[in-house]
Amino acid sequence: MLQATASAGTEDRTHSQGLPLSGITVIDLSHVYNGPYATFLMAMAGAEVIKVEPHHGEHLRSRGDMGGAALPFAMLNSNKKPVTLNLKSEKGRTLLKEMAARADILVENFAPGVMDRLGVGAAELQAINPRLIYGSSSGYGKTGPYRDYPAMDLVMQAMCGVINSTGYPDQPPVKSGAAMCDFSAGIHLYAAIMTALYERERTGKGRVVEVSMQDATYASLASNLGMFHARGDAAPARTGNRHGGLGISPYNVYAATDGYVVLNAPGDHHFRAILKVMGREDLKDDPRFLSRSSRVVHFADVDELLESWTRTMPKAEIARLMLAAAVPCAPVRELSEVILDENMHARGSLQWIDHPELGRVVLPHSPLVFEGTPRRPIEPSLPLGASNNTVFGAWLGHSEEELAALKDEGVI
Amino acid sequence: MLQATASAGTEDRTHSQGLPLSGITVIDLSHVYNGPYATFLMAMAGAEVIKVEPHHGEHLRSRGDMGGAALPFAMLNSNKKPVTLNLKSEKGRTLLKEMAARADILVENFAPGVMDRLGVGAAELQAINPRLIYGSSSGYGKTGPYRDYPAMDLVMQAMCGVINSTGYPDQPPVKSGAAMCDFSAGIHLYAAIMTALYERERTGKGRVVEVSMQDATYASLASNLGMFHARGDAAPARTGNRHGGLGISPYNVYAATDGYVVLNAPGDHHFRAILKVMGREDLKDDPRFLSRSSRVVHFADVDELLESWTRTMPKAEIARLMLAAAVPCAPVRELSEVILDENMHARGSLQWIDHPELGRVVLPHSPLVFEGTPRRPIEPSLPLGASNNTVFGAWLGHSEEELAALKDEGVI
Repeated sequence: MLQATASAGTEDRTHSQGLPLSGITVIDLSHVYNGPYATFLMAMAGAEVIKVEPHHGEHLRSRGDMGGAALPFAMLNSNKKPVTLNLKSEKGRTLLKEMAARADILVENFAPGVMDRLGVGAAELQAINPRLIYGSSSGYGKTGPYRDYPAMDLVMQAMCGVINSTGYPDQPPVKSGAAMCDFSAGIHLYAAIMTALYERERTGKGRVVEVSMQDATYASLASNLGMFHARGDAAPARTGNRHGGLGISPYNVYAATDGYVVLNAPGDHHFRAILKVMGREDLKDDPRFLSRSSRVVHFADVDELLESWTRTMPKAEIARLMLAAAVPCAPVRELSEVILDENMHARGSLQWIDHPELGRVVLPHSPLVFEGTPRRPIEPSLPLGASNNTVFGAWLGHSEEELAALKDEGVI
Repeated sequence: MLQATASAGTEDRTHSQGLPLSGITVIDLSHVYNGPYATFLMAMAGAEVIKVEPHHGEHLRSRGDMGGAALPFAMLNSNKKPVTLNLKSEKGRTLLKEMAARADILVENFAPGVMDRLGVGAAELQAINPRLIYGSSSGYGKTGPYRDYPAMDLVMQAMCGVINSTGYPDQPPVKSGAAMCDFSAGIHLYAAIMTALYERERTGKGRVVEVSMQDATYASLASNLGMFHARGDAAPARTGNRHGGLGISPYNVYAATDGYVVLNAPGDHHFRAILKVMGREDLKDDPRFLSRSSRVVHFADVDELLESWTRTMPKAEIARLMLAAAVPCAPVRELSEVILDENMHARGSLQWIDHPELGRVVLPHSPLVFEGTPRRPIEPSLPLGASNNTVFGAWLGHSEEELAALKDEGVI
């Protein structure tokens, strides 16, 4: 409970009143997307998250990327307290152990074995604090023959079948534009840690939990795996914008005058509604379109019929007409539209924030909504080491002189 | 705690000993991927999950799909107790309330407002059981102007920018082959519920939690959003298989003799290792390749250099050589390879199961690994209504005569 002793924590204590993770302290050693997403969700649910970084900053903070990493860093590091700590020094590891003795949760996504080799693995830290929940995430997991393979989102998309399942059947495969394996692992990691936190209330004991990006990706290919199971080698590797199981029609991306729309209309009532919107009720008894299975067989005809109409008007107008008829439809939005989404802004899921380094930007809040408690206000990400004094001084109780010496020695 | 009174629960009690959610009972009203994935993870973590379905079965069970929905159903419904219940009947709602009085968690992913209109919304059920955690998931959330829009994975991929960010810059956009929005919402829903379950141990009170597919997808576009922030309209909408932020090179899919491989090698040391593997150390001082930023500028040259080599050998051999040099690399796997992954099978994340309806199939276990407790054995998904007697009889205490009457009346 960092707030209880940290002088800088007064404001936080007010904010996190009533939030579910109020009073929980997290030591966050993680980097880039996977672990930081998990700890971002903890922070927004009310936890105090201490972001522990090496002196050059975690990869995402220090990455050049022609400026492209700045916003992602800000997205994932709101409401965290950044400290610098050299884990390669004995005194650095001692400080980590002092934190672990007082914390509830530790999160890391180093390669498996790194923390153990440093002498601050789960066994060492739980020996100091048996209530500590120690959560790890990695590409292939801590057990299994691939544990030491380096892994990143693109690699996992390849290994898990995402790339081969994406793109057009007559073209090379293409990755998902979203870093879906990284983020899936991050939210699974959060989930595993919360499960252990609940369990700790019953048993009084912490747990070691782990998640691999590979495991966390598998189920999302359910439709594709289903089609492969049903059809074997006759199943196409990828279906363009058609349903992954080729089991629904209409289901595609259709050209509009100013971009594209999607339509995913599994029900017969959906199709009748589409015909009405298009003014083509003359086709309502056409045997090609009467049932889902007949539409699936004739999906080329279905798609041609729809696109002959969508091509004549703007994407927003198509979506408006279809949604008014309760047909699942949406414009294919560009990011310039996504960040302004009126629904997410109305919900507080996206917020305009004046960020001291980036200026006015749109940042996400947590997707986890706890009804009955206002959202924790977003506090912009802080510079490297900004919370050193709060954490090592006010919380751990080291004097100003000690902190100065630790800084001189390159420990913090 | 269904096991405590259910005569058929003896075996389960043994299995879930020591699992973190042992003793937790879940009422699962959800369908297809989103909610069922959340409750699948609860089941595998030791909870008793009662799967409540209408008489025609939930959508995924009843969907034709030319057989393609059978495996997905089996993937997501292991270790659940299926019951039939007609929520449109007064007696059906009474039975639901009897269950809610005894349960810990209720999960649903109907359109917002459906449960309220049936008279079994969160307020009604928490009035009966204030400790009940009520978790919902929907496309756009329970608040906000889009709440009533129909939503499915394809629609959310369009709305959230996934489709526009996927594919080649000179070609139309394409969806991710994985149902990433559905599954992301499902695991976020699990996460929100676990957070509330922890909180309940502290406060004694349940919570209403909710997740939208839209919120749950946003952060996964961090790289793309970062590039858009940094470059504005100069940022390409999509980058094919290149890094979403165009900040890393080499980073691409490269052709092999028998398919493709991916390489994602951000570090200078990675590039030196690649040159060594390719026998091209003559290029180690080439200024185009010396730093990440210079490689990013010259990414076409980098990609051409790599592919001139990858084209000459099989994907497995390329991956073997690169991994031996600690370069992040993987074959682009087909689903026939994915389901046999030796790492996931070694970890127990994938298992061969003799399924009574499907025969011998590969099914996933949970990505959430709780060290120190063996995985709960996978029990294959059961037919519609298979647990009616266990749940309504042994657990709720209705007599055989009552159950027969409820069946005759079309209630169960």
